[in-house]
Amino acid sequence: MLDNKENAIGVFDSGLGGLTAVKELMRQLPYEKIVYFGDTARVPYGTKSKEAIVRFSMENVLFLIKNKVKMVVIACNTSSSLALPLLKQSFRIPIIGVIEPGVKKAVRVTKNKKIGVIATSATINSEAYAKGIKKLNHSIRVASQACPLFVPLAEEGWFNNDVTFSVAREYLKPIVASRADTVILGCTHYPLLRSVIQKVLGNKVTLVDSAKEVASEVKKLLKETGLENNRRHSPKHLFWVSDQPKHFRKLAKRFLGYDIRNVKRSSDV
Amino acid sequence: MLDNKENAIGVFDSGLGGLTAVKELMRQLPYEKIVYFGDTARVPYGTKSKEAIVRFSMENVLFLIKNKVKMVVIACNTSSSLALPLLKQSFRIPIIGVIEPGVKKAVRVTKNKKIGVIATSATINSEAYAKGIKKLNHSIRVASQACPLFVPLAEEGWFNNDVTFSVAREYLKPIVASRADTVILGCTHYPLLRSVIQKVLGNKVTLVDSAKEVASEVKKLLKETGLENNRRHSPKHLFWVSDQPKHFRKLAKRFLGYDIRNVKRSSDV
Repeated sequence: MLDNKENAIGVFDSGLGGLTAVKELMRQLPYEKIVYFGDTARVPYGTKSKEAIVRFSMENVLFLIKNKVKMVVIACNTSSSLALPLLKQSFRIPIIGVIEPGVKKAVRVTKNKKIGVIATSATINSEAYAKGIKKLNHSIRVASQACPLFVPLAEEGWFNNDVTFSVAREYLKPIVASRADTVILGCTHYPLLRSVIQKVLGNKVTLVDSAKEVASEVKKLLKETGLENNRRHSPKHLFWVSDQPKHFRKLAKRFLGYDIRNVKRSSDV
Repeated sequence: MLDNKENAIGVFDSGLGGLTAVKELMRQLPYEKIVYFGDTARVPYGTKSKEAIVRFSMENVLFLIKNKVKMVVIACNTSSSLALPLLKQSFRIPIIGVIEPGVKKAVRVTKNKKIGVIATSATINSEAYAKGIKKLNHSIRVASQACPLFVPLAEEGWFNNDVTFSVAREYLKPIVASRADTVILGCTHYPLLRSVIQKVLGNKVTLVDSAKEVASEVKKLLKETGLENNRRHSPKHLFWVSDQPKHFRKLAKRFLGYDIRNVKRSSDV
């Protein structure tokens, strides 16, 4: 069953931020069906322990497998940072996280060999990005900063107000000081604050959106494993959440740019 | 078993904010043992649906009952607002929330019959406070405001900085405009931002901390039901959390003012 080409690509995230990855997957792979799971009842992951994040991620993968997916994309940076190795060990299905694609892009882009990483506390504490960068190029210097208030600010819809500027100026001090020419947006919510972040860092800094980078890796992996869907039909995507669909549907528009209808609540998780 | 006077008072909260109530219970009822449960794996509740909040609250009460408590205090405002009626219907054990104690105090204190309520989105949308106040005195005018960023600001430890001031000034505009002389802090985290809130509202406004008010109701209820513990021994309190104890232990000091050691992780929830 797992090697059925017509099965969907499973994507999970702690909430709705993973829709950034979905949007890019839809663009690059228009004939692939997507089954999305957003753990909206337990969101956020970024302030919780590794133990909790691994447990939640395991349950999310199981849910997607039960929904007959041919591979799993972890759109959540926190989950990718802390749970990916164990998930890969545990399941036979191909599983891909957002850290490596983001790292590859940043290493390719930087000219002064200084990369900044901003993400949740759990992601920063895991050092997944810093280690990934060092693995590719040991001479690159990495400045990391957790920005716990960015997620609630984005969810409040304060994308461009004075408070968000003040918070960004405070958090981004060490990144500015590091003189990084490339900064990884290591959390799926951060692209919503892109314009504020860009203004604080200055226009010369390149922002890398990890979730966006994952789509081309997925495309490659599908080719390598022969799991590409050859049928040229418009797929019917499915969206599952662990809390009520209403709130998710409303906010999803901010990420996807259009309304979605197929949102159901899962009682599994 | 339930009427065993020496059994503990069970207290639950979505996280650690409920320790405000615990501190006051310890002060007013020094011989009562407390079993606390903080749902740190699923925190916060205030941005989630009624359905999710009711489900989580049910599970929390069951956990406390299994741990042999003689009554349950819901220290969480969100849970008290949305789940209390159903919990009371479902369980035989006495259950008490923080809304009514906060309402009573505010109605007693206000002179100009104008009360402000600040709380999470879920609590404000439930209208539990506004309805409770109107029930006691229909002529009182109520101004309500959800302040979703207050919890993450408090958890970030930004109790007194410029960003917190800007956020408070923005959120509290309608409360200031209402000319309320009494404002209910309808979320257990908000007392941590008390000084900022007080400064924005002005010194003439009385702040009511609902979680603090609940202790005297508990005292009364114990007397009425004959469940007071008559043994004059220093009790050994127990703290349970659904995520790892480490982070909880660290932040608990901010609420209680001293270190706690007896923190265990529950795998039940």
